Amino acid sequence: MSAVPADPDDEMTMAMSDPDPVELGERRRNLRRPSSATVRLRFGAEAIEGRAENVAPGGVLFFTEGEVRVEVELLEDGVSRTVTGHLVRSERIEGERRGWAVELD
Amino acid sequence: MSAVPADPDDEMTMAMSDPDPVELGERRRNLRRPSSATVRLRFGAEAIEGRAENVAPGGVLFFTEGEVRVEVELLEDGVSRTVTGHLVRSERIEGERRGWAVELD
Repeated sequence: MSAVPADPDDEMTMAMSDPDPVELGERRRNLRRPSSATVRLRFGAEAIEGRAENVAPGGVLFFTEGEVRVEVELLEDGVSRTVTGHLVRSERIEGERRGWAVELD
Repeated sequence: MSAVPADPDDEMTMAMSDPDPVELGERRRNLRRPSSATVRLRFGAEAIEGRAENVAPGGVLFFTEGEVRVEVELLEDGVSRTVTGHLVRSERIEGERRGWAVELD
């Protein structure tokens, strides 16, 4: 979908630290546009399978191999478009606010 | 499910840096046991809805509010048990290897 892919890793870091760091090149800034679209994320597989690393009464840590395919529906100004990609990162930012970075195909 | 919940945040950090840091107290170490169980993760909601932060040809960054409920099936030594909890973190570690931290109810 992109000739010059954005770097969701970088964007996630930005979002958590500095929403508009001066270090970003003009070209990158022009490609990325702010959006307040409603986003619906769906996972391509019904279940994501992996291997546990450790298990405790309060938590499980496990690892998977391979891309986690997702479908992203963007609803903006009454228009819906659906794109596909893979999950880069999902993490809690503060409280129950959570950031999701998806790289698009 | 736990009187002394494990801290998946901490475990994820451990997994990526040091699998058995000496700083961990004996009590914590006893609660957490290594496991090679097969893990199947399922999301409680069909779609996870949030609000975009920015959109680029190559990626989407968005935020959600609230717990991301998950179901975790652990298959070990021919025995399956299913537990519920919420996603703490999912991130690429190297290549397509990905770590998942789930806090259990």
